[in-house]
Amino acid sequence: SVSIEFGKTLSVRRTPIPGLVVLDLPVHGDARGWFKENWQRAKMTAAGIDLPDFGPVQNNISFNDAVGTTRGIHAEPWDKYVSVATGRIFGAWVDLREGDTFGAVFTTELDPSSAIFVPRGVGNSYQTLEPDTAYTYLVNDHWSPDATYTFLNLADETASIDWPIPLDEVEISAKDKEHPRLADVVPMPPKKM
Amino acid sequence: SVSIEFGKTLSVRRTPIPGLVVLDLPVHGDARGWFKENWQRAKMTAAGIDLPDFGPVQNNISFNDAVGTTRGIHAEPWDKYVSVATGRIFGAWVDLREGDTFGAVFTTELDPSSAIFVPRGVGNSYQTLEPDTAYTYLVNDHWSPDATYTFLNLADETASIDWPIPLDEVEISAKDKEHPRLADVVPMPPKKM
Ligand SMILES: Cc1cn([C@H]2C[C@H](O)[C@@H](COP(=O)(O)OP(=O)(O)O[C@H]3O[C@@H](C)[C@H](O)[C@@H](O)[C@H]3O)O2)c(=O)[nH]c1=O
Ligand SMILES: Cc1cn([C@H]2C[C@H](O)[C@@H](COP(=O)(O)OP(=O)(O)O[C@H]3O[C@@H](C)[C@H](O)[C@@H](O)[C@H]3O)O2)c(=O)[nH]c1=O
Repeated sequence: SVSIEFGKTLSVRRTPIPGLVVLDLPVHGDARGWFKENWQRAKMTAAGIDLPDFGPVQNNISFNDAVGTTRGIHAEPWDKYVSVATGRIFGAWVDLREGDTFGAVFTTELDPSSAIFVPRGVGNSYQTLEPDTAYTYLVNDHWSPDATYTFLNLADETASIDWPIPLDEVEISAKDKEHPRLADVVPMPPKKM
Repeated sequence: SVSIEFGKTLSVRRTPIPGLVVLDLPVHGDARGWFKENWQRAKMTAAGIDLPDFGPVQNNISFNDAVGTTRGIHAEPWDKYVSVATGRIFGAWVDLREGDTFGAVFTTELDPSSAIFVPRGVGNSYQTLEPDTAYTYLVNDHWSPDATYTFLNLADETASIDWPIPLDEVEISAKDKEHPRLADVVPMPPKKM
């Protein structure tokens, strides 16, 4: 298994996309392997961490065999708390909400000692940097097979994401190859109250 | 990676321990790897699945390097929804609640296509059957470093768990070696309302 940093302090880092927040997670290493609180509601809504209060109703896991497997870019009408159980990813996020920051891009690597809070309407995508990468996320609304959400093409020239492995060399789903360019995306409106 | 069964129907299986319920999870395999709804509140409280409604506040992941790594037996004052992100485990559960079923034992193997709901007061433990096994669980109350919970020794002669790999050959924490035998366990009382 890939070596990760143990004993970080729980903390957050803001990004250029409003509400998109990267977390450092304390991972406790020992002779058995490691243990982490991947998500902890009380600690993570406390002052100093200051994520919005989050009530998950669904936990998804996607497993990726090969290095380079790429998924996205998907914006759904709920928040996501994203992390890695094992392996490592290059993540890319594109703001697809109505407003001044529409089209803003943020990228970073995540391993088991980090996580990211992705607010509703921000497009989510990743490429695996290790074989056998297990990607896990919590969401605060239920997915539906019939709904169409907001998608952006992984190869969009405006977002111009600098994927570590070229997209024509990696595994991508047929659906993900069909998503529109930024000019054809209908921005996601704010949530109705 | 280990091959798992794709396309199972979401369903539950009762066990001899009241409230301890094993789930079959649908896993969707494709060229990228696989995807699963690891936990889905609405589906899993619906008739036919019929888990109690569950509101997680914490998600923990433990990663185990070597085959045979063994953790437990821990009963805490909250419910747990336990599953495997990658790898495979032999799980053992011992009822440590006050009442007629105190001491009842259930064991089964879990891989990413299964999960188990462990009610408050039922002792939880596992031994890994694959290297690099990532074990993930959701809990509906916050862990505290100062609390003492209810523990049973992994080698308890009354529970007599048939561990696939003998306990003297595997990695176990110092704490887990000190837990009492069943006769010395104070049963967990019902939750105060
Ligand atoms: C998203 C989802 C898919 N599925 C099913 C539908 C398919 O049979 C299978 C795979 O679905 P796909 O949409 O191809 O998975 P995917 O991995 O391409 O989709 C995911 O990509 C991430 C980048 C996003 O952040 C996620 O929100 C999600 O959209 O799983 C569910 O059962 N529940 C779900 O919640
Ligand atoms: C359980 C827990 C531990 N920790 C810390 C304490 C230690 O530094 C490190 C490892 O803790 P340990 O108790 O040794 O982990 P462990 O893996 O032996 O404990 C687990 O065993 C499972 C069988 C049980 O079902 C779990 O509920 C839990 O008790 O993680 C947390 O920060 N939060 C938590 O919720």
